[in-house]
Amino acid sequence: MSFYDATVPAYLQILSSLSGLLAKAEAHCEAKKIQPEVLFGARLYPDMLPFSKQIQLACDFASKGCARLSGSEVPSTPDTEKSFAELKQRLSNTIGYLKTFKPAQFEGGERKEITFPVGPNSNLTLKGQEFVNRFSFPNFYFHAATAHGILRHNGVEIGKRDFLGVA
Amino acid sequence: MSFYDATVPAYLQILSSLSGLLAKAEAHCEAKKIQPEVLFGARLYPDMLPFSKQIQLACDFASKGCARLSGSEVPSTPDTEKSFAELKQRLSNTIGYLKTFKPAQFEGGERKEITFPVGPNSNLTLKGQEFVNRFSFPNFYFHAATAHGILRHNGVEIGKRDFLGVA
Repeated sequence: MSFYDATVPAYLQILSSLSGLLAKAEAHCEAKKIQPEVLFGARLYPDMLPFSKQIQLACDFASKGCARLSGSEVPSTPDTEKSFAELKQRLSNTIGYLKTFKPAQFEGGERKEITFPVGPNSNLTLKGQEFVNRFSFPNFYFHAATAHGILRHNGVEIGKRDFLGVA
Repeated sequence: MSFYDATVPAYLQILSSLSGLLAKAEAHCEAKKIQPEVLFGARLYPDMLPFSKQIQLACDFASKGCARLSGSEVPSTPDTEKSFAELKQRLSNTIGYLKTFKPAQFEGGERKEITFPVGPNSNLTLKGQEFVNRFSFPNFYFHAATAHGILRHNGVEIGKRDFLGVA
């Protein structure tokens, strides 16, 4: 099997569905006269990260994950998005970046040792497949599903089918 | 690479971390004199599924996913858990079931056509890798992260490190 097939399309599936969630969230804000920045700042608990940061982190875990797995330069994207248009562009840019990868770049990536930061002063080294199983996928899906949960909690009319990208 | 390595350990990582979340949730209920069934019934929105069902579904998407990918009989587990002990046992049983699989059972599973229900009256057929990318992983992580979000929203002192299983 191809390590590319087990990674890049999985990220793309959810990045695309997050774009759909943003479209429904934007329509909800317009219909209910909600200021977008209120929703962007919504959290499930005061010490959790807000909605916009969940989207930004989902993008980062996808793009940085693919960069590390393919041995590419790890991109750094400042979190400057303050509107639906900008958040949609962030997702679109991430999707475009992931689509630049070719399967050959991931060959053998499952066995390659990957060293990555797990805090301000610490790194961890895992084989590529372990990096995906224990770090990249759990973080990526965590932020994507938490973004969905924040929207649901705020009354946006979405459901799991939107998260899966089949709505 | 091995299709087993790309699936079974990924599910196990999060099933194990959910066991840790349950332990912290149970301690929280004891310390705050919260009836466990109140937390089990907690939801992020009234038409969403409650906490206990999120755990049950995460278990099901892991066990049924591995069964389908390996061509094994798909297990069916009634959702009868009403206590922390029973929810922990459900997770433990699921972990035990996943550990019975051998890598050889997943060989070629990425290309095998898998037909699975996507509603009461409809099935979908996808190749094994697509089944993982588009259905099994997104559903599995969705319910696991939503369970985490419900606990966070209710003040249980956990964080992403607990979800990742590194706390």
